[in-house]
Amino acid sequence: MRKLLIANRGEIAVRIIRACREMGIETVAVYSEADKEALHTKLADEAICIGPAALKDSYLNMEAILSATIASGAEGIHPGFGFLSENSKFAGLCEACKICFVGPPSAVIAKLGDKQEARKTMMAAGIPVIPGSKEPIRTVEEGKKAARRIGYPVMVKAALGGGGKGMRVVWEEEAFSSEFLTAQTESRQAFGDDTMYLERYIRKPRHIEFQILADKYGNVIHLGERDCSIQRNHQKMIEEAPCATLSEELRRKMGKMAVKAAKAAGYENAGTIEFLLEETGAFYFMEMNTRIQVEHPVTEWVTGVDLIKEQIRIASGELLSILQEDIRLKGHAIECRINAEVPEKGFRPSPGVITGLHFPGGMGVRIDTAVYSGYEVLPYYDSMIAKVIVWGESRQEAICRMQSALGEVIVEGIDTNVDYQYGIMSHPRYLAGETDVEFIEQIQKDW
Amino acid sequence: MRKLLIANRGEIAVRIIRACREMGIETVAVYSEADKEALHTKLADEAICIGPAALKDSYLNMEAILSATIASGAEGIHPGFGFLSENSKFAGLCEACKICFVGPPSAVIAKLGDKQEARKTMMAAGIPVIPGSKEPIRTVEEGKKAARRIGYPVMVKAALGGGGKGMRVVWEEEAFSSEFLTAQTESRQAFGDDTMYLERYIRKPRHIEFQILADKYGNVIHLGERDCSIQRNHQKMIEEAPCATLSEELRRKMGKMAVKAAKAAGYENAGTIEFLLEETGAFYFMEMNTRIQVEHPVTEWVTGVDLIKEQIRIASGELLSILQEDIRLKGHAIECRINAEVPEKGFRPSPGVITGLHFPGGMGVRIDTAVYSGYEVLPYYDSMIAKVIVWGESRQEAICRMQSALGEVIVEGIDTNVDYQYGIMSHPRYLAGETDVEFIEQIQKDW
Repeated sequence: MRKLLIANRGEIAVRIIRACREMGIETVAVYSEADKEALHTKLADEAICIGPAALKDSYLNMEAILSATIASGAEGIHPGFGFLSENSKFAGLCEACKICFVGPPSAVIAKLGDKQEARKTMMAAGIPVIPGSKEPIRTVEEGKKAARRIGYPVMVKAALGGGGKGMRVVWEEEAFSSEFLTAQTESRQAFGDDTMYLERYIRKPRHIEFQILADKYGNVIHLGERDCSIQRNHQKMIEEAPCATLSEELRRKMGKMAVKAAKAAGYENAGTIEFLLEETGAFYFMEMNTRIQVEHPVTEWVTGVDLIKEQIRIASGELLSILQEDIRLKGHAIECRINAEVPEKGFRPSPGVITGLHFPGGMGVRIDTAVYSGYEVLPYYDSMIAKVIVWGESRQEAICRMQSALGEVIVEGIDTNVDYQYGIMSHPRYLAGETDVEFIEQIQKDW
Repeated sequence: MRKLLIANRGEIAVRIIRACREMGIETVAVYSEADKEALHTKLADEAICIGPAALKDSYLNMEAILSATIASGAEGIHPGFGFLSENSKFAGLCEACKICFVGPPSAVIAKLGDKQEARKTMMAAGIPVIPGSKEPIRTVEEGKKAARRIGYPVMVKAALGGGGKGMRVVWEEEAFSSEFLTAQTESRQAFGDDTMYLERYIRKPRHIEFQILADKYGNVIHLGERDCSIQRNHQKMIEEAPCATLSEELRRKMGKMAVKAAKAAGYENAGTIEFLLEETGAFYFMEMNTRIQVEHPVTEWVTGVDLIKEQIRIASGELLSILQEDIRLKGHAIECRINAEVPEKGFRPSPGVITGLHFPGGMGVRIDTAVYSGYEVLPYYDSMIAKVIVWGESRQEAICRMQSALGEVIVEGIDTNVDYQYGIMSHPRYLAGETDVEFIEQIQKDW
């Protein structure tokens, strides 16, 4: 690779530009009219404006991005995360134009992007998925039969459902009939359809994901897990590696499963297998993300592997340079996402000009950001303005370091969630490692 | 330790404050009247003004610092580096006042601070020192006899010498008589004394130093070496760990010697054994530094050990928590010292207000600094304003990362050596690892 176009903005674009520089690869940034003063625009060797601020006109504008790639003579595109990173059509267009897309082949993105298709692939490969009904369910009798097979508690869901409508948790068979009929009625009213399906209800699971690297020659390794259970409305807030409570045995088992899942999907490049983990140790495939993740730095820190560079090497056709047995986890890493938002007002975004800025440094502190003093946080884009990542020999040390680091962050001119994150870092349940996906919801009730 | 006073300023004071925070130790900063707005003054839990800007009135003012310690109820003092850190009288006063001095006992500081005494201790312990004459030399005949024993080339030095006066390198016996007499005449004229001594002349040595940790119970380990050969006027500019060319065998041998040297001195706490290393692999004890070093972060990064925390634990009477066999070097770390100075004008200091500031971040980048946008770099103190430290899997990757990181540094309002450091990072001889203590002098001639 001689020249790479980065089809993204913000800190991930800066992250990719840095990796390219260190590899001696020229970089082309693309930017919207609103992002003329953005750090990624300034840092890249070249920068091309691809349209107005609105996403569809710029960062989601496939034609503009492909034109910029061809015009600049870039050989490849790194899509980062979000935007076009998991768009199989875009990856397909790159393939048609003979542009190296830093990610898996379009067919693999398509297959894993279709949740039912992905589920089938995994089941066929013997990967545990959340037990559920295979056929559409329309009557109480059909439902009871399926529920008995799945095991209580079960979740009744509208086939066309969404936004929590037509959903009911049923704890035991006596309650099934009434709950099912209520959900079905709701579904009929909301979606004009009474087709239902059932799924095992997973109680307070942890969100555990495994980082995968796979080359074009069938070599697949995993780089351990990340615990991303601290979420608000399915949006991750804090991620750590390794998980506070995973046993070495379960890590090995889930890791093997993750590699198997990636192989079953014919996967290439960096990817993530997301699992739900029950307290019992039972775990279920949720989905595979076919891109680099926001939280990749915690894995980088405990393994020493530069994931962005690996992505580029793999896309360039290189063999994986690391063997599974070379991956050793050292210490503990935590990432806090710093967002421009007002936690006290429902996490409402807080765009505006940053009038003063100070980030911590020193041992075990990594800051990934694309903002600077005088920069205007724009309302058009994601509110994440920085990631504070720390490393410690132990989880305990990492937590203390994160508290200290968050305590030093100064962002003037806009509101942020820094204090909220500090609150989580000091919460007894977080300190004890008692985190599951309901954590934020529960502490919000207590606060 | 419940409360610690930090008898220093700048980035090392900030570094120590952070370590204390992570350990749950309260911090007391001391500051000169000029340092009211300094970061260490703002970050500590308490801050006490100890006098005017002049060093002797504040940071070297033992009485003021001891009074502040007692008044604040701090149990200990961390001296950092420079200032009172290697002052045995100050350490002795702490002992007399029952204040925990984070460093070795005053008697050990005194013994190692006296260079002749240190040399004797090391020779008695079988540590190689630079071969030299043991008795004063006054005649050519005495000199020739000693030179034959030492081996050519030798350095003839005036016993009272300094500033390069009365010094001559003699390459072979034929030249001895004339060079010796010239040096002796120069010495007589400059110092009114014709006592000379001889030392083996070490050609283009590397400066290799070993980091030592020793507890109060006789346990001593080393944490590998740092190559600090890139110096200007004996002032280190760039340090790295490990050394680019040291064999595993030589590392083991020198490491063992370093531990032996520390044991011979009855050492306690963190310390550094400095060696000169010849191309032949021969090495000689130079001196032992009885404090934390500016360049400690490169060792922290390749070993994962937090040296400041270890210092505090050792001073508190804890056993070393790490065994020699647990120390494994991973990857390569480099530190560049960023100074407020003008390299083009003889590295003249460049104090003044920093009007704009931007440091890089991301994977493998650590910034240790105490400056911020709007901060005034004061003329009274050291010109070092930041340390940029990088880690890479290989030396090659670390160098590329340092180039990229230095390329992102923005300091407005004052001059710095960032471009000069970038020049070294791109120099073919540096890239090849061909560094010795004459490196800067030689490239200055070429540039």
